[in-house]
Amino acid sequence: MGKTPAAAKRGIPFKTNFKEWYPFIVEAAELVDKRYPIKGMDVWRPYGWKTMRLIDNLTHREMERTNHEELNFPLLIPEDLLSKENRLVSLLKLAREKGVDPSELRMDEEKGGFAKEVYWVKHAGETELDNPMFLRPTSETAMYTMFPLWIRSHADLPLKTYQIVNTFRYETKQTRSFIRVREIHFFEAHTAHVDEASATYQINEDLEIVENLMNELKLPVLISKRPEWDTFPGAWYTIAIDVIMPDGRTLQVASVHHYRDQWAKAFDIKYEDELGKQRFVHQTTYGMSERLLGAIVGTHGDDKGLIMPPSVAPIQVIVIPIMPKKDNKVLETSQKLLSDLKNSGIRVKLDDRDIRPGQKYYDWEIKGVPLRIEIGPRDLANSSVMLANRFGEKSSYSIDKIIDTVRQELESMGDQMLKNSKEHFKNSIKKLPNFNSQGNLLEFEEPIDNSSVYEIAFDGTDAQSELLEKSTGLSFLGDSTTPYKEQRTCVISGKLTNRKVFLSKTY
Amino acid sequence: MGKTPAAAKRGIPFKTNFKEWYPFIVEAAELVDKRYPIKGMDVWRPYGWKTMRLIDNLTHREMERTNHEELNFPLLIPEDLLSKENRLVSLLKLAREKGVDPSELRMDEEKGGFAKEVYWVKHAGETELDNPMFLRPTSETAMYTMFPLWIRSHADLPLKTYQIVNTFRYETKQTRSFIRVREIHFFEAHTAHVDEASATYQINEDLEIVENLMNELKLPVLISKRPEWDTFPGAWYTIAIDVIMPDGRTLQVASVHHYRDQWAKAFDIKYEDELGKQRFVHQTTYGMSERLLGAIVGTHGDDKGLIMPPSVAPIQVIVIPIMPKKDNKVLETSQKLLSDLKNSGIRVKLDDRDIRPGQKYYDWEIKGVPLRIEIGPRDLANSSVMLANRFGEKSSYSIDKIIDTVRQELESMGDQMLKNSKEHFKNSIKKLPNFNSQGNLLEFEEPIDNSSVYEIAFDGTDAQSELLEKSTGLSFLGDSTTPYKEQRTCVISGKLTNRKVFLSKTY
Repeated sequence: MGKTPAAAKRGIPFKTNFKEWYPFIVEAAELVDKRYPIKGMDVWRPYGWKTMRLIDNLTHREMERTNHEELNFPLLIPEDLLSKENRLVSLLKLAREKGVDPSELRMDEEKGGFAKEVYWVKHAGETELDNPMFLRPTSETAMYTMFPLWIRSHADLPLKTYQIVNTFRYETKQTRSFIRVREIHFFEAHTAHVDEASATYQINEDLEIVENLMNELKLPVLISKRPEWDTFPGAWYTIAIDVIMPDGRTLQVASVHHYRDQWAKAFDIKYEDELGKQRFVHQTTYGMSERLLGAIVGTHGDDKGLIMPPSVAPIQVIVIPIMPKKDNKVLETSQKLLSDLKNSGIRVKLDDRDIRPGQKYYDWEIKGVPLRIEIGPRDLANSSVMLANRFGEKSSYSIDKIIDTVRQELESMGDQMLKNSKEHFKNSIKKLPNFNSQGNLLEFEEPIDNSSVYEIAFDGTDAQSELLEKSTGLSFLGDSTTPYKEQRTCVISGKLTNRKVFLSKTY
Repeated sequence: MGKTPAAAKRGIPFKTNFKEWYPFIVEAAELVDKRYPIKGMDVWRPYGWKTMRLIDNLTHREMERTNHEELNFPLLIPEDLLSKENRLVSLLKLAREKGVDPSELRMDEEKGGFAKEVYWVKHAGETELDNPMFLRPTSETAMYTMFPLWIRSHADLPLKTYQIVNTFRYETKQTRSFIRVREIHFFEAHTAHVDEASATYQINEDLEIVENLMNELKLPVLISKRPEWDTFPGAWYTIAIDVIMPDGRTLQVASVHHYRDQWAKAFDIKYEDELGKQRFVHQTTYGMSERLLGAIVGTHGDDKGLIMPPSVAPIQVIVIPIMPKKDNKVLETSQKLLSDLKNSGIRVKLDDRDIRPGQKYYDWEIKGVPLRIEIGPRDLANSSVMLANRFGEKSSYSIDKIIDTVRQELESMGDQMLKNSKEHFKNSIKKLPNFNSQGNLLEFEEPIDNSSVYEIAFDGTDAQSELLEKSTGLSFLGDSTTPYKEQRTCVISGKLTNRKVFLSKTY
């Protein structure tokens, strides 16, 4: 396994060897410690936790801007909220609405699926509990038990709430820091509205929030309406947001669900309209998780370590005094610079450890600090400093205008990161090779590339999407929310269509 | 059950009837909703959660000031970390150090006590787990499993960490919002040091942080070194911080523990000193919880509802336009005022609902908003506004200087709150009545008052403190950290002493 010359010293795998690079780097950069004695439950170290909290702050800001209120629900949910009656009632109602046979619906199965994934609390102290409880995998059942108590009339709507909490899934698949874990740092918004249109408006607001956040995190994303079989239980439809990781696999980092009044009917969430009539609310949810940090690590990192987007970098600027003989003037200037930058609201740290500057560079490179300022006696003499960005570009700047310079350089680092990630994103998306039908499968003229996302003009049936999945070994992500402007020919049916769909290997 | 005329309309019990007032007010002010179907696990509503997050922000600020780093540990702890060996080892070592028989120590029993209070996860999905886990009641065992991996040399010390998380206790006693709950919003700082003196320095820093926080929250407190039998398991000593609630019972809102190297020995947490020798670290912890909010509710509220300290009031100022006929000019001025105050960093809200002003006053009074601004046509004509504080004091102020006025009034609200709470505090502390020894008990000349805290000059033995507890029916809180400057006569032994101790009924 080869190493870059600099990285070799620190044992960093090449990023092209993503499977080894990723788990190595999340620990080497001190985001998490995986040595905690429960598989899939990492310890968040201060550097990782600070980054996550800065991501959360962007979320809080967007929630405040859009008048969502933060609340906090108990972690434990009584089993009986998931009772068979509830399941059955909702199942039957759903089936009636959709005009299908209940046996065709997957809600019961999916809920059963959740039940298979939850951690149970059946004992407390030395007592066996009469009412077993489970650790929330998500909070629909908990919240929708309370919503009927809070929603009385149309004047209570829209109800826009969210929480940032720990959720739990008993994962049996291989765990990966941030990407697939058993305790999940989770964001969930839950809203209730007077009607379907108002809920649809909320879905659009959610997608606008996604756009703002992804722009801050410099993450290009695929936004797709999931096929019906991949829709969240009880949802009318699901729109998912996927990042393309360096290995070409897609990582779902967020999802938005329109529930119509399906959950409301199961949980009896009604309001009195302006004419005094009782109506069911229409609901939406919007979820995100620590996977956002996984996406940042994967998308922006390089052979030297992380590269943190300036918006969420716990340290935006590291100041390194270069002191041949403990030069007091250099140290004083560095400290002055530190406090000037701090007072301007820039997250900055001074590294005055008594080790070689090269060693310090490595340490902050692996942590992905966007900007490094070096100050030595020669710089002082010129009233200047050396400013290097994490891409290795380095110039001398006047110390007088350093705050403005730093602001500009952080901005331009962000721009460069987005340019780079967009390029990788674009290069990862390919056209599907030509194929012939061969028995129950499609036979492709060129081999299907696991590390690519395939974009397809598609207007086929569910059965045909399944055929595509089977033949490629990839997953059908669903319809892009930005379809083709001009019609194209569906690769399967030959019909003209605007529909653009994606296939990929998923995390 | 009598009501004040204003409160009667809203059904608020008198505050003198604290037992009914408290549970009523926490729901009426929309801090929490207790109707969640698990006893002792409330839903935090937006107003309550925002207050708690503002309290947390004060804590974060103090932690940052004192160079603590925030991390985040998994919720679940494997049972085997609490194994009998660990317990035994620490028990024996402790006994050896203290020069006592291990059977005299309560550590094993106390840990067994924890085991009796924890929620167990023994099942996941349909699987019975090989290694049962429990929900953290506090994080010593989890953290001290990782500390040896992070601490190598004296250069890694002091290690100053903290987290703000949900913890769990299976309470069998009666639950009360914020005061005694089963899911606890919890703060815990854990530090490691080179020696006992350095850990003691940390204890002093913690007490300084307590002082800063209590000053922000306007809470006078008793600070006592708990008697040995009430010391946290594995601690050398415990200093606890108690608030005196309106019913005279004390509520422990924070505690600070000096562990010496007792836990370090049980968990093998060592460092290499400057001479290359392996030494055990000395540790401290500092804990606080949502009880701080319970103390705020209890200490500051009145017959009309809550009174929020300005430092943590989610809404510091409520602006109420008084519009006889939908006066646009009034509304515009109110909105301008809203944005001016907001831009000055003041937490402000405009109540432009179409209901009577009196109704609005009630709503914001019950929520304890410190300041109310009323703007009507007459005020506009005078370029002034009416400003009322939550104590009911009301004056007209020029609109030009309103931001400065609001800042001053918030400051003076805080001062007044502290003055009031100090007065209640002082009045609650009494001298112990004279007594005669009567068999195994003391017989007091006046009846012991359950709603008072008794301050005593005391230099007796543990047996004598127990005698005091039994005879009064109160709890021995321990030695005040501010002993008498001049010696007094111990009420029991008759010896001269500087020791000042407290007895109270506790929550």
